[in-house]
Amino acid sequence: MGSPVHRVSMRDTWSRQVNPDIESERCRQSFDVERLTNILDGGAQNTALRRKVESIIHSDPEFSLKENYFMSQNERYEASVQKRFHVQMLAQRLGWLENSCELQFAYRTLSGELALGFQHAFMRALRSLGSEEQIAKWAPLCEKFQIIVTYVQTELGHGTYLRGLETEATYDADTQEFVIHSPTLTATKWWPGDLGRSATHALVQAQLICSGAQQGMHAFIVPIRSLQDHTPLPGITVGDIGPKMDFEYMDNGFLQLDHVLPDGTYIRLGTAQSNYFAMVETRVKLLLFEILPSLQKACVIAIRYSVVRRQSKLRPSDPEAKILDYQTQQHKLFPQLAAAYALHFLANSVLEFFNNSYSAILGRDFSLLPELHALSSGIKAMVSDFCSQGTELCRRACGGHGYSRLSGLPSLVTRVTASCTYEGENTVLYLQVARFLVKSYMQAQASPVSTSQRSLPQSVAYLITPGLDRCPAQRAADFLHPELYTMAWAHVAVRLIKDSVHQLQTLLQSGADKHEAWNQTTVIHLQAAKAHSYYVSVKSFAEALEKLEDEPAIRQALKRLCDLYALHGILSNAGDFLHDGFLSGAQVDVARTAYLDLLPLIRKDAISLTDAFDFTDQCLNSALGCYDGNVYERLFHWVQKSPTNAQGNPAYEKYIRPLLQSWRSKL
Amino acid sequence: MGSPVHRVSMRDTWSRQVNPDIESERCRQSFDVERLTNILDGGAQNTALRRKVESIIHSDPEFSLKENYFMSQNERYEASVQKRFHVQMLAQRLGWLENSCELQFAYRTLSGELALGFQHAFMRALRSLGSEEQIAKWAPLCEKFQIIVTYVQTELGHGTYLRGLETEATYDADTQEFVIHSPTLTATKWWPGDLGRSATHALVQAQLICSGAQQGMHAFIVPIRSLQDHTPLPGITVGDIGPKMDFEYMDNGFLQLDHVLPDGTYIRLGTAQSNYFAMVETRVKLLLFEILPSLQKACVIAIRYSVVRRQSKLRPSDPEAKILDYQTQQHKLFPQLAAAYALHFLANSVLEFFNNSYSAILGRDFSLLPELHALSSGIKAMVSDFCSQGTELCRRACGGHGYSRLSGLPSLVTRVTASCTYEGENTVLYLQVARFLVKSYMQAQASPVSTSQRSLPQSVAYLITPGLDRCPAQRAADFLHPELYTMAWAHVAVRLIKDSVHQLQTLLQSGADKHEAWNQTTVIHLQAAKAHSYYVSVKSFAEALEKLEDEPAIRQALKRLCDLYALHGILSNAGDFLHDGFLSGAQVDVARTAYLDLLPLIRKDAISLTDAFDFTDQCLNSALGCYDGNVYERLFHWVQKSPTNAQGNPAYEKYIRPLLQSWRSKL
Repeated sequence: MGSPVHRVSMRDTWSRQVNPDIESERCRQSFDVERLTNILDGGAQNTALRRKVESIIHSDPEFSLKENYFMSQNERYEASVQKRFHVQMLAQRLGWLENSCELQFAYRTLSGELALGFQHAFMRALRSLGSEEQIAKWAPLCEKFQIIVTYVQTELGHGTYLRGLETEATYDADTQEFVIHSPTLTATKWWPGDLGRSATHALVQAQLICSGAQQGMHAFIVPIRSLQDHTPLPGITVGDIGPKMDFEYMDNGFLQLDHVLPDGTYIRLGTAQSNYFAMVETRVKLLLFEILPSLQKACVIAIRYSVVRRQSKLRPSDPEAKILDYQTQQHKLFPQLAAAYALHFLANSVLEFFNNSYSAILGRDFSLLPELHALSSGIKAMVSDFCSQGTELCRRACGGHGYSRLSGLPSLVTRVTASCTYEGENTVLYLQVARFLVKSYMQAQASPVSTSQRSLPQSVAYLITPGLDRCPAQRAADFLHPELYTMAWAHVAVRLIKDSVHQLQTLLQSGADKHEAWNQTTVIHLQAAKAHSYYVSVKSFAEALEKLEDEPAIRQALKRLCDLYALHGILSNAGDFLHDGFLSGAQVDVARTAYLDLLPLIRKDAISLTDAFDFTDQCLNSALGCYDGNVYERLFHWVQKSPTNAQGNPAYEKYIRPLLQSWRSKL
Repeated sequence: MGSPVHRVSMRDTWSRQVNPDIESERCRQSFDVERLTNILDGGAQNTALRRKVESIIHSDPEFSLKENYFMSQNERYEASVQKRFHVQMLAQRLGWLENSCELQFAYRTLSGELALGFQHAFMRALRSLGSEEQIAKWAPLCEKFQIIVTYVQTELGHGTYLRGLETEATYDADTQEFVIHSPTLTATKWWPGDLGRSATHALVQAQLICSGAQQGMHAFIVPIRSLQDHTPLPGITVGDIGPKMDFEYMDNGFLQLDHVLPDGTYIRLGTAQSNYFAMVETRVKLLLFEILPSLQKACVIAIRYSVVRRQSKLRPSDPEAKILDYQTQQHKLFPQLAAAYALHFLANSVLEFFNNSYSAILGRDFSLLPELHALSSGIKAMVSDFCSQGTELCRRACGGHGYSRLSGLPSLVTRVTASCTYEGENTVLYLQVARFLVKSYMQAQASPVSTSQRSLPQSVAYLITPGLDRCPAQRAADFLHPELYTMAWAHVAVRLIKDSVHQLQTLLQSGADKHEAWNQTTVIHLQAAKAHSYYVSVKSFAEALEKLEDEPAIRQALKRLCDLYALHGILSNAGDFLHDGFLSGAQVDVARTAYLDLLPLIRKDAISLTDAFDFTDQCLNSALGCYDGNVYERLFHWVQKSPTNAQGNPAYEKYIRPLLQSWRSKL
């Protein structure tokens, strides 16, 4: 029989008690939630430091996110500048340094609602690309916010293809000056953050022209607004690009330059290596601090709501059931929860690889860069894809209330979906992975196995590892072995890579030129790159489990998620596993049984597994997702603050009254 | 070689010319676009009437949607009441009747941004459920907007499961009155449209209690706001539920009743038949007028943008290529375009079936109702799922500019995704289809074939049609036959239904009770219901093609879309076709070749196929999607009107100036 229904009376002193429907979930913890939080944080010290920062931030009303859902774009912008102002003051007062954990935790706590975030990117570009003289001039100004800077690259008509940028920097040999100019409408710089209403200086990417010849992209520091009164400088047309799907707090802007002189000389471009490296660093941080938390928060909200919300009956004699007890609800949410964990360990393993590569690079060894580039591209594409789909699935799993902005879910969805486009459009990124895979495959084919084993990058070493042609699993339990499903994913990735290379070569042999042949096989390459990325993620989750030997209870709970993650992927892509008979139809059915059997096991730990992410209520900013489970009380309470209730009805006198009385007057 | 690039100068008189990149697409039409528009409209007369209404609406500045993207929730609400006011005046002046095509076209033109839309639903409920006396009293008031009504059912704690509603209507035998009351917080009525700030009367669903015994759900007309000054009446707490993911224009509301007396007596509940019927009618209209146009508009916008936007090069010697020339872009957009057509023909075939059933019902024949209910449930779920996914895919295919609200795409996405939840949550609907399929399958098994052929509902007749165990297609061309892929989808649907029944029975035989067994197989039932619905959609598209014998050019263009739709479905669900060896891996590869070969063929007709939907620029309200292809000019022009540019910077004096000068003062 189901648990008795908790009735919510009008007069409950709800803010002082925990909803019994969520409390009962926490009574039966199978592992120590605090320990898992420590593991996710990378140690108990980090957890403690994070909580200290959180309590500082939450105790200051200037940092409240509560009114966000009721604000206009203008108000959101103002609030995010205000928050930046106060973070700066706070950091100065408490001695938090630029790259400190404290600041990183503060940003997490504020869910990124901070304007003027490009100082750091500008500084990094300056330090790696600028001359000593330039660094000496600009770094102190930038560090102390005496100027506000942004990085200006994309144009109204140009994004991914950098060589297509139209903005020109013409060197005038007579005056020995560069002149920056937007020759067409489509050359208008478009999208840079902090540009629309805030920045005083821009690092502008432009096509260098010397003596009439194009010299490629170079970066110039251009003053765009007066430091006295903030008005645009002569020759500058600058503004905001208007309403977006989200990120209302940020003043993404446009910029037209009419024969403008930059301040200081141009900054030379970095090497391919240093550019790669900056890109990779941005991506890895994005994954960890922006994209992945969206999915984690969505899981927390949807799963907490699903043990409080009751709907229909499992049996006619029962009370209404918690919706998390329905198989279909588990099937919607648990793969997202599993992905939230899988992608956490994945992002951390990429971070680790990044740090190792950095050490190598300091020793002038650039050999890991191609792999690092491919890996970070594929992982960024996969994580942003999964997080976008997953947050929306979590949102829909909350029914009507998931559509209310007060649930916190709509903004998670509309914000994370942007990450499929920015910092490398996902399709473009997957195709870069595909090129790496084709190259690695050809290399593996060309050399004897022993040579390949030494030279093949680690993440594609499976290309030469002999596998099985048929999956040996027969019973459901056989599918619950990380070695088995990691091997299964490797098998499928190898087959798809092989297939994509074969298709490409067939076209080339039939006389297609190499560019045409590539374009005509991109859909197939895409599939191979996705399978490879999934394999990498399954492998990293399995490896993370191995490190948890001392934590058997946590290991067991996470292993179920790992199993679910791998099997959900297999079942969602069953065609790829059946294609060459690696799995038979009967084996797919057995894998499905294994998958379905995991759902009720994960069900028991579901609240603990979401509690472990340890998001504060203020950071979640969700009427449905708070720790105490007082969903309905909070939703009702928050709604009362909406401007649609606080203000009079603007339509009544003008339209509703005349409408109600329009016929009466004629009678 | 690619076509030469059109450079957009700053001074073009762009509003008077068509972008040559889109003009060139229209030079090579393979069919008469106007004829296809007529077919989609259901005849040239409808096209003409629609355009007449559109020109009336567009010529009146009161109906402009231009400012929508810059408005607050309050302003959107006011604008939608204003539009309702003006539509009523217009309809009165021009003699447009309540159910006329003219009004329907007017709503399409206004993209549904109209408040006070529940008069019609209320009238229908009243007419089918009310007594003659009640109809005589309320219908004239409602028709002439002397009262504003809404339909109030769902509660803060209760949605799908109607029997769980907590609002009580207690009959007081002494006073012979009903008393309507919200006994708990979760009984608060929540979500009804027009309730938050507009309605004067509500048709409230409540649990009837007579002499202490529950008598089930009944509906009561309750006055909630004064007709004199619009203030809430005694005992009424009413308000708006605040910010949502979209539908800002609508004042979805909450309502608490504190021992309130209804006006008039209660309205008896309809029969199961009449309730089904009203539900089905609502769903079919929703599909045709709300859900499907979202996907069609998204296709128009994304495909037009994709022949104007250029990015990277297909060959180093070429100019930058139109992004629609990339296989991956075709692979993103053309399945959506194919679905937009497939779902159009599907919705129309359901409408036709609905009309036939209606005739039967008038003759007291209710035999078609279970099938109609199942069909409309599955189709609603499938269409809303596909349209939600599809609009988002179209949005992402437009890169950064697809994230600007001025592209029109974000609001299509955030609005259509609500349709996965309202009017029947999709998972719940699919499971209703599954119950129908299980029943039909059992029926087919129990009777001899000859009996089943007579008695099985038409949409599941394929359950007893003998099919092939192996797909006979060998070459790519073999997959381009509607009979072949319709049969393939029937085969897979039958297998999955059979599998779901088998799983259910196995559990029952092992001793599980029937409710538990059902819950534990719902994920499998879901899969079967989806396959069945896809089969129905492929079949209806194929049947629509057969009716186009006199239009060979149009038929050819649409057949490619039908082929693509069926093959895309097969490739996306390849596992289901490989599972029992119906297709071999080699055959899947051949089907993929057939699919990929269709893309460049559809590419040629892509602009014509989207032009044929014949949405006006005003109705699309998209800077990226206008007919003339002047994407960049319009985006730049619209951005200037944003309040973020029109108003001063609210953060400068308060935060930015102090920040810029905070260090200076210390020096």
